Amino acid sequence: MKMDGWRASARRILKLSSRPAPAPRFAPGRGNPARHGSLHRSGGSCRGTQFYFGHKQPLSVHLHGKECALGVSFIQSQCFGSVATKIQRNPEFATINSDDIRYFRDLLGEKNVIQDEDALLAANMDWMRKYKGSSKLLLLPRSTEEVSQVLKYCNSRCLAVVPQGGNTGLVGGSVPVFDEVIVNLGSMNKVISFDEVSGILVSEAGCILESLVNFLDNNGFIMPLDLGSKGSCQIGGNVSTNAGGLRLIRYGSLHANVLGLEAVLANGDVLDMLGTLRKDNTGYDLKHLFIGSEGSLGIVTKVSILTPPKLSSVNVAFLACTDYLSCQKLLLEARRKLGEVLSAFEFLDEQAMDLALNHLEGVRNPLPPALHKFYVLIETTGSDERSDREKLEVFLAHSMEEGLISDGVVAQDIQQASSVWNIREGIAEALMKAGAVYKYDLSIPVEKIYDIVEELRNKLGHLARVVGFGHLGDGNLHLNISCPQYDDAVLAQIEPFVYEWTSKHGGSISAEHGLGLMKADKIFYSKSPAAVQLMASVKNLLDPNHILNPYKVLPHSLSSP
Amino acid sequence: MKMDGWRASARRILKLSSRPAPAPRFAPGRGNPARHGSLHRSGGSCRGTQFYFGHKQPLSVHLHGKECALGVSFIQSQCFGSVATKIQRNPEFATINSDDIRYFRDLLGEKNVIQDEDALLAANMDWMRKYKGSSKLLLLPRSTEEVSQVLKYCNSRCLAVVPQGGNTGLVGGSVPVFDEVIVNLGSMNKVISFDEVSGILVSEAGCILESLVNFLDNNGFIMPLDLGSKGSCQIGGNVSTNAGGLRLIRYGSLHANVLGLEAVLANGDVLDMLGTLRKDNTGYDLKHLFIGSEGSLGIVTKVSILTPPKLSSVNVAFLACTDYLSCQKLLLEARRKLGEVLSAFEFLDEQAMDLALNHLEGVRNPLPPALHKFYVLIETTGSDERSDREKLEVFLAHSMEEGLISDGVVAQDIQQASSVWNIREGIAEALMKAGAVYKYDLSIPVEKIYDIVEELRNKLGHLARVVGFGHLGDGNLHLNISCPQYDDAVLAQIEPFVYEWTSKHGGSISAEHGLGLMKADKIFYSKSPAAVQLMASVKNLLDPNHILNPYKVLPHSLSSP
Repeated sequence: MKMDGWRASARRILKLSSRPAPAPRFAPGRGNPARHGSLHRSGGSCRGTQFYFGHKQPLSVHLHGKECALGVSFIQSQCFGSVATKIQRNPEFATINSDDIRYFRDLLGEKNVIQDEDALLAANMDWMRKYKGSSKLLLLPRSTEEVSQVLKYCNSRCLAVVPQGGNTGLVGGSVPVFDEVIVNLGSMNKVISFDEVSGILVSEAGCILESLVNFLDNNGFIMPLDLGSKGSCQIGGNVSTNAGGLRLIRYGSLHANVLGLEAVLANGDVLDMLGTLRKDNTGYDLKHLFIGSEGSLGIVTKVSILTPPKLSSVNVAFLACTDYLSCQKLLLEARRKLGEVLSAFEFLDEQAMDLALNHLEGVRNPLPPALHKFYVLIETTGSDERSDREKLEVFLAHSMEEGLISDGVVAQDIQQASSVWNIREGIAEALMKAGAVYKYDLSIPVEKIYDIVEELRNKLGHLARVVGFGHLGDGNLHLNISCPQYDDAVLAQIEPFVYEWTSKHGGSISAEHGLGLMKADKIFYSKSPAAVQLMASVKNLLDPNHILNPYKVLPHSLSSP
Repeated sequence: MKMDGWRASARRILKLSSRPAPAPRFAPGRGNPARHGSLHRSGGSCRGTQFYFGHKQPLSVHLHGKECALGVSFIQSQCFGSVATKIQRNPEFATINSDDIRYFRDLLGEKNVIQDEDALLAANMDWMRKYKGSSKLLLLPRSTEEVSQVLKYCNSRCLAVVPQGGNTGLVGGSVPVFDEVIVNLGSMNKVISFDEVSGILVSEAGCILESLVNFLDNNGFIMPLDLGSKGSCQIGGNVSTNAGGLRLIRYGSLHANVLGLEAVLANGDVLDMLGTLRKDNTGYDLKHLFIGSEGSLGIVTKVSILTPPKLSSVNVAFLACTDYLSCQKLLLEARRKLGEVLSAFEFLDEQAMDLALNHLEGVRNPLPPALHKFYVLIETTGSDERSDREKLEVFLAHSMEEGLISDGVVAQDIQQASSVWNIREGIAEALMKAGAVYKYDLSIPVEKIYDIVEELRNKLGHLARVVGFGHLGDGNLHLNISCPQYDDAVLAQIEPFVYEWTSKHGGSISAEHGLGLMKADKIFYSKSPAAVQLMASVKNLLDPNHILNPYKVLPHSLSSP
């Protein structure tokens, strides 16, 4: 389609009102679609809100084997899109006794030592109800000093600990595997300081991401990360898992934005690295060890983060491309032509669009019916409404001239922007509604991203529908395989193929979700043996008894003391 | 001055030609002014180019004490702006013998094993001629495998090693203290790959920064860091020192931009962390340990870095403010109004301007004579000439209305832009010409940055001239104390006051220069004892014999095996 074609559809190119930014992106009544799937809220969790996927029962956890003192001696967790993993409870860990309870009550006060089974149920299970532990104790410390005393005691007693934030993780990293003590940071939820000249925010780790977003909004700033789960997830958990989110293409990862943090080590030592400076070259920058180590090296208790000013002008375009190479070239053009205002570059294939149209209520394709193979969602955020809009229009006209896009619309207002975002963000929910789904979160060099989708599609033939979408601007593919029901024969076609293919092409088997319990044993697909061995040495150095978040992140063969 | 005043000076607001970008920023014939001082080139260094400050002889190194086998048993280095430091040679280190030389010749080939005294002289001394070692051996490995074999051998023999890049550091980190073996990476200077879709560059560590800049320029990209020493410094050294540079306010630090690296540990193990992905949450992100650890944990041999697209439109404004609070408010406005195009926010006080005008040839104040207390240099870089210019003009008009700026000019062309940059970048050279100078590179919360300048000015009275300038947008102050000659009485007024003040106000005693030899013992002013102790443990883990860059980064009390 040439410029004429674009002009023919230019009636759809209308202005997006610039204030406020188009949030929420989630259609009321349809739940709160996270990037990783659609979330429904229910009551009764430890944070007052609990998320679950459609199914109300644990879908994939099978408990069996020999009984130990706590009724579980090993667990086999067969997750969707993951082969079975067997883990034995580490027999060196102690079990809770009445002296322990007495100690914690004296330290934290009775109401912050939770033994009630109903309250524990929510803290023992992840929001997808995919992983379930059997902890008998949930602690709610209110200060760094209390966290320090808790860990010092647990370390001396060899009691295993799960640090827990909003419990919104996707890989079983935030719930116990067996009877670990759950230490939830939710009571440490104060903003400590905000410097409006530099935009540096210091807060306790238990602050809910959305409450920080609201706090900053009142001061004219934004968080450099935005997640579907922001209503529940905590900044300490975000930092501990190096959460990616929707703004990474613009503002970079948390390694770029976290200026400092405070962490409590397994032995109770408090590590004060809570700098508030953009530049500080005094010794090794140890804070990075704690960003993304999923609570296995220490408990993050405070965070200092650089926040960008809120910009007033937001535009959203939804475009069609005839082939993947055009999507790729369009990304290059967008980085060059929109560079400084580009804030999202998402893509989905026609299979993803079909699913969204067939399974989601109120979702429609804003482009006229045509055989579009790919769709791209571009968002810009800048400081000047008129010039930002002009920049986008010049880019779109040029891309059309070059044949990179075959059709497109620009959202006129918040509703249109939300409606376009709903297509992209509703795909995970549509997949869940369509039947069984095997889900993979992969980083792959951009030029090869769609190769794995096509190869897998050829491999599976009529057995399943292979769907590709994700954060193309970050090289992050959400690869989903949809079929009528879970089928080991299908899974055997998918794994280890997906991991091997990703590894062979220099990709990562976990772009943003982490390894947790689900992928701890798959680390070698993405990291060299020498690197993993050094990780294990670092773990031994910081947590010699391995009490912190055991059975996770590192391969089980390396994670015993 | 009100809007009228601004309009009166608006004749000076002219268009800066947008291609090419205003480089070089250095006036021909005046040498190559680095951010840290003015550099003059001379022949005869190990990299073919040697830099030195005006003085041709070492200015501050005094060798004395007992003679050891190599003629030096301890060194007292009295640096400008630093109190004396005493260090003893670690007696556990072996000394080079003929078997060692034979081994290295067999491994690397004769021409890559340098024993010639003249060639060694350049590698033994830093470019300021402030630090001088007495190494008898310079090795030039050509591959990771050779670096690995060199370190494996040195570790087995307990031979100390100094990793060296372009040797452009400012804190004595890149030269031997005694007789360490110098391992220079300059022969590993190949670009390995470049992905123009994602902008990810992979290169060997010995690539000169400027050669990468030129390589990328041909591909329409830029390096995310820019340094005055780019003609000599190497990317491996940049990464190892977490070099800051001129683009940090826009693109963040190297922790944000380095996607992966390969490093050789002290025992010769090669750690492959050379990922090329924006997102990879598979285990601990160990690469960050090597970014900024100044070669003391391993030798970086390859680097993968995210490079931004080259943008076509560059504007430079030079503004006057009546007080520091206005500079601070202007920064806030610039972050908000210019947010996505802001690429530099530098400031200087009237004392700095006086020095530049009085001591530099061809430098003039582009603003009419007036009693301006502060000057601010703002650079924007964007993708659209007209809209970027409009954005800047709206911002300037608004700032004038608000009374934040009292006068200003916008550069009309590359020459005007260079001329404005020359004021800012010439200050270090002007200070050197004005007499003795004590130099401090501090990070301080923006709202307090100028307090230390004023307090020190009050404290020193007529004894010295206190000058403040630097990267205000990054919270980085270059505090300089100028006096007719070096004077211990003056120094005693400055230190430890400056370090104590910085520490008390949550600052960093090294914003971008690192600790090296000069400030290894001062780390506690910026880092907690627990954090430093953990750094020492990490050092012990990765380099148990402490052969890598000894006597540096960590306090001498902790740096012996």
